[in-house]
Amino acid sequence: MEKGKMIYEGKAKRVYETDEKDIYIVDYKDDATAFNGEKKGTISGKGVINNRVTNHFMQILEENGIPTHLIKELSDRETAVKKVDIIMLEVIIRNIAAGSFSKRYGVKEGTKLIAPSLEYSYKNDDLGDPLINDYHIISLGIATREELDTIADYAFKVNKVLTDYLKDLNIILVDFKLEFGKTSDGKIVLADEISPDTCRFWDATTMEKLDKDRFRRDLGGEVEAYNEILKRVFSK
Amino acid sequence: MEKGKMIYEGKAKRVYETDEKDIYIVDYKDDATAFNGEKKGTISGKGVINNRVTNHFMQILEENGIPTHLIKELSDRETAVKKVDIIMLEVIIRNIAAGSFSKRYGVKEGTKLIAPSLEYSYKNDDLGDPLINDYHIISLGIATREELDTIADYAFKVNKVLTDYLKDLNIILVDFKLEFGKTSDGKIVLADEISPDTCRFWDATTMEKLDKDRFRRDLGGEVEAYNEILKRVFSK
Repeated sequence: MEKGKMIYEGKAKRVYETDEKDIYIVDYKDDATAFNGEKKGTISGKGVINNRVTNHFMQILEENGIPTHLIKELSDRETAVKKVDIIMLEVIIRNIAAGSFSKRYGVKEGTKLIAPSLEYSYKNDDLGDPLINDYHIISLGIATREELDTIADYAFKVNKVLTDYLKDLNIILVDFKLEFGKTSDGKIVLADEISPDTCRFWDATTMEKLDKDRFRRDLGGEVEAYNEILKRVFSK
Repeated sequence: MEKGKMIYEGKAKRVYETDEKDIYIVDYKDDATAFNGEKKGTISGKGVINNRVTNHFMQILEENGIPTHLIKELSDRETAVKKVDIIMLEVIIRNIAAGSFSKRYGVKEGTKLIAPSLEYSYKNDDLGDPLINDYHIISLGIATREELDTIADYAFKVNKVLTDYLKDLNIILVDFKLEFGKTSDGKIVLADEISPDTCRFWDATTMEKLDKDRFRRDLGGEVEAYNEILKRVFSK
């Protein structure tokens, strides 16, 4: 497989065409951004860690019946994935109140929610990725009722599988963001990444943050935190 | 029935206890506010119009199977209502993009939505009444799944009944906000008001705004607009 032209450069990844029609290559960068790109920096080695951790999680999810875009890890930073049209939604699952949720609803960070909650943001940088609900998504033609049902079903399953997996590593899965895409034959699959960039991971004993909040909130130790996640995830 | 102590003063209404345990009296004011109380003013005669229009709509809704808090109009500005515990949600139905929806999702005001959309705001002035979805509401214990199903069912029925009724008066029901409460026996009923303060009404021929947007946006002619709604609503 030959790497072709770069077709997209995001905040943390580049995506390339290949000589195979339905395959892309994702290339993970060390660049870190927060607050809709307002804060910029680098976390040394992040690209390698996010590539490996994402692929490891996606493999586990595939084994548990959740279809993903993963084809094959090609190198430390590169992975071959199925070509998809990304559905323009961020799908966020929360088990414990934190971040924007805590701020928006005045709920103390760390409060356990009565039930896991799902929310969607409309992926649109100009609008600041606004919160959007099922009715809006359907009213605006962003996705259909059936697509949302599939997405919500997969998202809660991902939560169950990863929460259980991480519990054994003494990690609490506080919340996380998923993205889904549609393959050329119209199938919805999990895309994007699952990493300390897109999840909140707390050490279950110390409650120490092992994720991008260390960068967002200037806590320091982000390189150590990302490496700690890599180490624990591959210890099993 | 004797009017007792005032138990609540909101932006547009006062609520009084009565000598009957399960009955309150609502008293409509002419005060107008917008943008979470940042803009303040008066619309002369508004209290009378909103009282009469609300009661007229609530009667029609009762006849169409939607339970409301309405008991009896007592005077131009006062109405006896069932005592309820208000569910801390604003329930917003939209048929056409306008206001905060247009701004939030970058959709031109006046765009017809593919399907009517429903959204909830968490009634909390300190937090600025943030948008909240079903999962959040349940996760935070604000309402149960069953209560939300009832509320959504009633809200879409209200939309159907009022849209049809207003069509005959050459008025487009663009969007509106409802509030629901629970009576002492646990029944969910429509509460609050349905008026030019809480609905967007557009003249179907001229697209002229006949609602509080005239005040919010400094368009002038708010007294005439409110009186026009009163006249049309009572013409049938």
